Amino acid sequence: MDDDVLRRGRPTCHVEYDEATALLVGDSLQSLAFQVLSDQPLADDPRVQLDMIRRLAVASGSRGMAGGQAIDLSSVDRTLSVPELEVMHIHKTGALIRAAVLLGASCGSGIEPSELARLDAFAKQAGLAFQVVDDVLDASASTAVLGKTAGKDAKDNKPTYVSIMGTTAAAAFARDLQRGALESLSPLGSRAARLGQVVAYIVERSY
Amino acid sequence: MDDDVLRRGRPTCHVEYDEATALLVGDSLQSLAFQVLSDQPLADDPRVQLDMIRRLAVASGSRGMAGGQAIDLSSVDRTLSVPELEVMHIHKTGALIRAAVLLGASCGSGIEPSELARLDAFAKQAGLAFQVVDDVLDASASTAVLGKTAGKDAKDNKPTYVSIMGTTAAAAFARDLQRGALESLSPLGSRAARLGQVVAYIVERSY
Repeated sequence: MDDDVLRRGRPTCHVEYDEATALLVGDSLQSLAFQVLSDQPLADDPRVQLDMIRRLAVASGSRGMAGGQAIDLSSVDRTLSVPELEVMHIHKTGALIRAAVLLGASCGSGIEPSELARLDAFAKQAGLAFQVVDDVLDASASTAVLGKTAGKDAKDNKPTYVSIMGTTAAAAFARDLQRGALESLSPLGSRAARLGQVVAYIVERSY
Repeated sequence: MDDDVLRRGRPTCHVEYDEATALLVGDSLQSLAFQVLSDQPLADDPRVQLDMIRRLAVASGSRGMAGGQAIDLSSVDRTLSVPELEVMHIHKTGALIRAAVLLGASCGSGIEPSELARLDAFAKQAGLAFQVVDDVLDASASTAVLGKTAGKDAKDNKPTYVSIMGTTAAAAFARDLQRGALESLSPLGSRAARLGQVVAYIVERSY
């Protein structure tokens, strides 16, 4: 963790304060998410809200973010295949991105179950695109542009899309994922325009 | 954390595996608690369940366990007064013990608001008694009896009820808290018999 010292150009919490404080802040923010989801009505039916909480809990836990992080830790110094890398990212960051999209949709109104499935397919591809682009930027941008420590993955000997398929193929893969994400949204028409902008931002960002 | 190697006579998770794994297991179990509270009906009214979730979230977060742990970290090598020590423990372990009692009561039936206040007063005193007894045992029992590393608080230069008031006064304080906890329960009669047994176990245990 020692090299992971910048985010958005500022020192990370564990550098600015210390590791124990950073961990406690993370724990507190995770509790706060559940507090926000439970302390006032977010949907006409309170059972919808319980379903949103369940979704976030599953996405954060051993079958989501925490599980993905465990796969990540066990992958250092190993060679992964593209499907293995995908399994890691689908858990580590993808599950929360999917939850974010589906939680918003759940407390909205007039969304059909078939549309929820479309939104989930969108979020899965957009989440993976985020990670692929992260790997490309880590390998190609400078720390100054990135606002976080560049070149960290190679230094840590972590498998990435760049280390497995090379920068050019990884960048093309990100654009494929963007296209797939947009296709998933197409039946939703203009109601999903903002989500299309989100995936464009994810893929086209330079930091 | 390095000396904290035993719990119930077995190696702690971060010793048996490693610190990152122990942290991820903790994160996963915390998520699992919210999943359990949301994935099936626990009360006739789903809003009761949302209230239970809110209670657990607050008790775990910056105003509960995580906040208490932060106070604990900032207390090493400092001298605390008894009220300061109490503030730390009420957050660090007390909030979750209170939540445990109140969550059980919330999804039970036929409990009056005035009885909930009684249960809360019970839990607050029982939770503090737990901590006072923990401090007494850490100072007086052996590692073999305790099943966790004894003498750790003094070695870590952490303020405890024993370091502040001495073993005899701390043990008497624990019995006062037990008495107060039982008095809080008295209007509930035999319905609260098991809770009376819990505080007796907390104060009379030898490990």
